Amino acid sequence: MKLTLDRQSSTPLVQQVADQLQAWIDHQRLRPGSRLLSIRQLAREQGVSQSCVIEAYDRLVAKGVLEARHGAGFFVAEQRLSEPLRDLPLPDETLSNRWQQFSDNPAELLNLCCGWLPSSWRASEAIAQAVRQVSRGPLEDLLDYCPPLGLARLRSQLHKGLGQIGIQVSPQQILTTQGASHGLDLLVRTLLKPGDKVLVESPGYYNLYNLLRHHQVEMLRMPRTASGPDVEVVETLLKRHRPRCLYINSLYHNPTGSSLTPKVAYRLLELAREHDVQIIEDDIYADFQDGAVTRLATLDAEQRVIYLASFSKTLSSSLRSGYLVAAPALITRLAELKMVSGLGTSRFTEQVVAQMLASGSYRKSVARLRPRLAQHMAKALGQLEASGWQVFTEPYGGMFVWARCPGWDFAALNRQAMACSVLLAPGSAFDPQGAASDWLRINVAYLQDQRAQAFLQRTRRPPSS
Amino acid sequence: MKLTLDRQSSTPLVQQVADQLQAWIDHQRLRPGSRLLSIRQLAREQGVSQSCVIEAYDRLVAKGVLEARHGAGFFVAEQRLSEPLRDLPLPDETLSNRWQQFSDNPAELLNLCCGWLPSSWRASEAIAQAVRQVSRGPLEDLLDYCPPLGLARLRSQLHKGLGQIGIQVSPQQILTTQGASHGLDLLVRTLLKPGDKVLVESPGYYNLYNLLRHHQVEMLRMPRTASGPDVEVVETLLKRHRPRCLYINSLYHNPTGSSLTPKVAYRLLELAREHDVQIIEDDIYADFQDGAVTRLATLDAEQRVIYLASFSKTLSSSLRSGYLVAAPALITRLAELKMVSGLGTSRFTEQVVAQMLASGSYRKSVARLRPRLAQHMAKALGQLEASGWQVFTEPYGGMFVWARCPGWDFAALNRQAMACSVLLAPGSAFDPQGAASDWLRINVAYLQDQRAQAFLQRTRRPPSS
Repeated sequence: MKLTLDRQSSTPLVQQVADQLQAWIDHQRLRPGSRLLSIRQLAREQGVSQSCVIEAYDRLVAKGVLEARHGAGFFVAEQRLSEPLRDLPLPDETLSNRWQQFSDNPAELLNLCCGWLPSSWRASEAIAQAVRQVSRGPLEDLLDYCPPLGLARLRSQLHKGLGQIGIQVSPQQILTTQGASHGLDLLVRTLLKPGDKVLVESPGYYNLYNLLRHHQVEMLRMPRTASGPDVEVVETLLKRHRPRCLYINSLYHNPTGSSLTPKVAYRLLELAREHDVQIIEDDIYADFQDGAVTRLATLDAEQRVIYLASFSKTLSSSLRSGYLVAAPALITRLAELKMVSGLGTSRFTEQVVAQMLASGSYRKSVARLRPRLAQHMAKALGQLEASGWQVFTEPYGGMFVWARCPGWDFAALNRQAMACSVLLAPGSAFDPQGAASDWLRINVAYLQDQRAQAFLQRTRRPPSS
Repeated sequence: MKLTLDRQSSTPLVQQVADQLQAWIDHQRLRPGSRLLSIRQLAREQGVSQSCVIEAYDRLVAKGVLEARHGAGFFVAEQRLSEPLRDLPLPDETLSNRWQQFSDNPAELLNLCCGWLPSSWRASEAIAQAVRQVSRGPLEDLLDYCPPLGLARLRSQLHKGLGQIGIQVSPQQILTTQGASHGLDLLVRTLLKPGDKVLVESPGYYNLYNLLRHHQVEMLRMPRTASGPDVEVVETLLKRHRPRCLYINSLYHNPTGSSLTPKVAYRLLELAREHDVQIIEDDIYADFQDGAVTRLATLDAEQRVIYLASFSKTLSSSLRSGYLVAAPALITRLAELKMVSGLGTSRFTEQVVAQMLASGSYRKSVARLRPRLAQHMAKALGQLEASGWQVFTEPYGGMFVWARCPGWDFAALNRQAMACSVLLAPGSAFDPQGAASDWLRINVAYLQDQRAQAFLQRTRRPPSS
């Protein structure tokens, strides 16, 4: 065996040895079960140190290419995968289409309807710094379980942040979660049983629909208007069906981008009190807004509102960090379930978020996002109008605009989108029963991409039949 | 205002300014709502740069001490916490005692019965390094959601590792989870409904009992012997009750430390086939063992065994990383529920684990743990015998030994333990119905601590009545 090692290369010698050994085995000059040269022999033959060979062999053992047999040396592994996993068909193909956008997207499509901001907009360097800081901090954060209610330092920061937006609670009312959807799951499991009824917005958050369906909870639809749910419909549904609770996005509603007006907010709270229902207020876009805004949790005086939030949209979806606020007795039940169903959240990722809140780097990063989003929203509204599209409402912030192109159905729009390498999500996904719709949730952060612009251009012509 | 800044100090100027401003406010020389000096004024007065003042004010805003009002400057926050959260009574006190050991332990007690290894034994430096490597890697790992089945690179590593212990599956059969307890929760929600019956080991894993109780699943107890569950009892229960599945720790059983013999393993698989029940094999201590060992998943030829594992015990409980292996159709259902109930696992922490598997640092760290555990196990068995204790069986590895001190009940033992600052978990925690027990799960990694030795010493005398 002769390896060609380049001592001037920026690739470490160990890696060169490992790579070339593997290439050699791959070309079947070595068969499964073959014994490799001893560490000493290979080191002498190639003029490298024994520790270099040990390290290279170790890496190939870790990759499953070699096997170490105690006292006998290193052998080509018997059970090698014939192909690396990345070359196999994506296993996620077996899953329903609804999760397709969560899979890595090898086709380089522009996901114009997705629910997150571009990587380049986000505070990746600040996150990386916080990660490194936590890696140098107390060992507990690298090794230990997190307390049931969440990391005290994170909860203390959340408590301050809630106070700043006018939500006055005790620290005992804050429970950390792995994102808002985990919080929703804990709530649904704790508050609802199969057959119960819940008021949901229509259009609305599709993963809430999935969750409620999974729990066999019946959904009653509140039509979303530009100022919030239609309160007359809400009143009728409350009287007729006696639902257990009501779910709402007050701010920058998903998918319409509309926000609750104070009048609608007060009426909803009044109705909730009269009919004794709980409100789940999902406020995951809270930090896209600076300063005072109409929120049910701010106006609530009787712990009727359960407040949910998350760092997935404004910071990172990878860290899985969110929280919820509720009455202390409910928090205790939710925390029990959180432990029973998974022994809690990640202490490491909670410390990363706490670090960014404490250092102010989170605050700075959202302060940079807001004007950028506002600029893209204004541009998007102008371009959609110029292209003959109709918008549901003109959002005053956030990332979504809900729009349709008169004369075009989803199938026709989708053909044009595919031709421009643009991925669309059907409007039906945002309907509780999956009814067809010609509305699209457009994420304004992606509309200036040339693929999206080309798509918009194509919709100026009448659809080809 | 006069701040005393020390330009020779190792504390950065920004921090000095922030700390001293906060101290000043704390001593109530500044009241809530008071306006602070402008950035320019404070900078001039203290002879520091404006950017230094901006940074200091920013930190105090992030801490909730100050508020920034757009265009008007900085003010002392209206809604300051009078005390920092860490000085409040621990909110976790409101939770049931069962989670006490998961809370930070300010009392410096030695947790002799806990379910994890000491920090000093674990590969914290290697974890920290992997964390830093991932922080410098692709942005997706810092920012994005993880695919439904888990990170492909981690699943590829897991696939190789499973092959190395003789579990032959396709990559489509591997689903990542936030630890084994999350995997169990997904399984219970997917496979069982209230009123269903499940065979559980007695003594056994208390969080499984909690989970099954939460789902209103009926538990039937299989007495654990030194060689595995009592197969005669299993046969009777299967005939009489037609349970849906059977849960087992094959290796280093929690809490007894015993392992399945091949004879019992074959008989269990035979019985499972005859009575058509599924087996959930929880193998979270797998990597405490090197090389071949009796496992149901290895012997299983008909996808009757669902295999669960985790990195919580051998690497880190903080990262929340585990996985499960099952038939492809079941994996699809579990992955759907994983997404519906929380939008998946943390891509960041999965990349950290994948990195440690690929580099071999995980393999090295468990290779260091094994002899250390074996040494502590041998020592513990000798010391317990010398102190007159009885052990259930002599485990050949792992961290638990199940032991009792004849003549002593739990209350008497606990009094002596408390006197030595040793925290015990009652044996009743490991009984499906919480029945009193004088057995203790002793974690051998902690028994050489002088507090544990003092406790052992005290049990050599007869209990005081």
